[in-house]
Amino acid sequence: MINALYRNMLSGKSVIRELSEYAQNLGAQIGEENIFDFSLGNPSVPVPQAFNDRVVELLRTESSIAVHGYSPSLGIPSVREKIAASLARRFGLPYTKDDVFMTSGAAGALAHAFRLVAGPGDVILTFAPFFPEYHPYVDLSTGAKLRVVPARTEDFQINFDAFEQMLTADVQAVLINTPNNPSGVVYSEETLRQLADMLLQKEKEFGHEIWLISDEPYREIVFDGRQAPYVSAFYPRTISCYSYSKSLSLPGERIGYVAVNPQSGVSSLLVNMCGQISRGIGHNCPSSVIQLAVADVCDMTADLSIYETNMNLLYDGLTRLGFDIVRPGGTFYMFPKALEADANAFSRKALQYGLVLVPGDTFGVPGYFRIAYCTDTKKVVRSLDAFERFVKAEY
Amino acid sequence: MINALYRNMLSGKSVIRELSEYAQNLGAQIGEENIFDFSLGNPSVPVPQAFNDRVVELLRTESSIAVHGYSPSLGIPSVREKIAASLARRFGLPYTKDDVFMTSGAAGALAHAFRLVAGPGDVILTFAPFFPEYHPYVDLSTGAKLRVVPARTEDFQINFDAFEQMLTADVQAVLINTPNNPSGVVYSEETLRQLADMLLQKEKEFGHEIWLISDEPYREIVFDGRQAPYVSAFYPRTISCYSYSKSLSLPGERIGYVAVNPQSGVSSLLVNMCGQISRGIGHNCPSSVIQLAVADVCDMTADLSIYETNMNLLYDGLTRLGFDIVRPGGTFYMFPKALEADANAFSRKALQYGLVLVPGDTFGVPGYFRIAYCTDTKKVVRSLDAFERFVKAEY
Repeated sequence: MINALYRNMLSGKSVIRELSEYAQNLGAQIGEENIFDFSLGNPSVPVPQAFNDRVVELLRTESSIAVHGYSPSLGIPSVREKIAASLARRFGLPYTKDDVFMTSGAAGALAHAFRLVAGPGDVILTFAPFFPEYHPYVDLSTGAKLRVVPARTEDFQINFDAFEQMLTADVQAVLINTPNNPSGVVYSEETLRQLADMLLQKEKEFGHEIWLISDEPYREIVFDGRQAPYVSAFYPRTISCYSYSKSLSLPGERIGYVAVNPQSGVSSLLVNMCGQISRGIGHNCPSSVIQLAVADVCDMTADLSIYETNMNLLYDGLTRLGFDIVRPGGTFYMFPKALEADANAFSRKALQYGLVLVPGDTFGVPGYFRIAYCTDTKKVVRSLDAFERFVKAEY
Repeated sequence: MINALYRNMLSGKSVIRELSEYAQNLGAQIGEENIFDFSLGNPSVPVPQAFNDRVVELLRTESSIAVHGYSPSLGIPSVREKIAASLARRFGLPYTKDDVFMTSGAAGALAHAFRLVAGPGDVILTFAPFFPEYHPYVDLSTGAKLRVVPARTEDFQINFDAFEQMLTADVQAVLINTPNNPSGVVYSEETLRQLADMLLQKEKEFGHEIWLISDEPYREIVFDGRQAPYVSAFYPRTISCYSYSKSLSLPGERIGYVAVNPQSGVSSLLVNMCGQISRGIGHNCPSSVIQLAVADVCDMTADLSIYETNMNLLYDGLTRLGFDIVRPGGTFYMFPKALEADANAFSRKALQYGLVLVPGDTFGVPGYFRIAYCTDTKKVVRSLDAFERFVKAEY
């Protein structure tokens, strides 16, 4: 019989997808140029030319079997080696290839990470605001439950009081996302130290390990010339889930990795377990030619400067219009407070001005909205006029 | 805590992998040229040049976002359209893009197919000899159980008496693999008609649907100028699971699809459900550039003729030595009867002659062994001398 679990999921609509479809239809009516679609987090800059050149070189010079042959289930060894060496060099942890498992992007990485350290009846904690796909990722993986710690809205760092209350003995893993979708906030060193301290303390209290799963696809998109503090450096039992979708601007190629902190003492065990998890979820590695090409450009990024340009334009323009915004430290998102308590009503009104904004309810923080500004800078500039007309007419 | 399910799987060794590693070590000692490694089903011919050319053309002429941007979760619409049109043209069923879901190879396709139509407590039946990875595929997917119908060793078609006995009301799906790994046998039209008749009869008797999951990565590797009967044409509730790994010889690119028979009346529902299943297993599509390139060469194959050449050499040579073999109709496998009842003992002795053969126990048929002849023809010819020395000395 047809599986009711997945059948019933079809009636649960994605707010983001609905908004995006609505925007497309509206665009067809009033003209694309009058629609400011800030709904989708889809990278808008080109991949580095070196990536495409490397793919072409591989196809032209290597044997078909070397380029298109089976990859071992943990990933191509030379690829894992290059990525581990890059991580070790950049972040000062003694990664080797045995700590790295190649995945189909961050979604694939998280699918493995959850299964590594959680099972039926366990709890995974995360922090609002959070990426809504974490719910199906966890709910459909291991029988564990995802619980969400309320936001600390003054700066979108961690609400430690609420966290401590919710950090009960059935919590096996804590999931963080910094730089954060949707707030754009980068967790500070102080936040990460305090988080690590609390986890270590609770591990002792509960007598079992608590794993930190770090979802970090925006790690390289950081503003003001800074670097995001590297999560794994703060806590030994960290599983880093990375994707090249944003840093190299190739989301369709589905390439990322799990990197287990070698200081956990069990990194090689967990990486080998990922190979077993893969057998049940039909993973069997990302594309071999994409693995080989990414490994050779893994220290590069696309030209990500447009995101900072857009952020500054929007942050300055919107604060001038009276919006209350925690200034993003990275990503291509910001998460302002709506101008009325009901962010859904706010977003519906905004649509009449061509502004497609996602209400914060989806991210676990009602009364806020997300702007995904991975778009053309000219359009960002023009959107500020639309924002002004919207605010002056409605509020 | 670390998930015991996957941790414990690490101690379960793969017979095929162990043999392959043993062969590599032996090769280092006595010379690669003296090892005849028939253990792995790894395609040995190059991808068609047109595939690589199309990748290069896409990278050189299309925008980065068109080539490397997010694919919708069901796959790129133009890709699904081209594949559906090809299937419709070749097999006479009215496929449209709504019936096709792009996957990471056949493993990804099966991971979705099992979740579509089976849940906890259900039974999926398959037929010996069978690909041993079906066990983790099913056991780790939906809580269903895989049961194996004993082989009909005279021709490796279906043992219908045993099948009818095992086809009880808790069976929700039947899984077949034709052309078959490991036997190389292609199910005849008569077999498929009889299978469909029995399923239709039992559906009525039980008052519920029974789905036929058809794993067909070897569909294009058929000998004697024939075509493999197309499974879905025989039974409306068929889910075809395909991979381009073998036909285009690019197993590392992880590209395939689920095609649900449009005559099932629910194909579009099931394809949309695949999009939901993906959210839990972190699938999110195969690589976009690989999707785009494969769609443009989906009616081509690599030069597969070497497999037929190798099959004929081995079949003739081994039958002359007294082996009892069902002549393969396709694939790059054959599955002869061992020369003693214990195929494990037989394979161990064979190793002393440099012959790496996989005992049939792994495939659910003790007393037989698998030869994977996706290898150099010269080596196949030389292996016949090794087989002769082996047989004359030991039996």
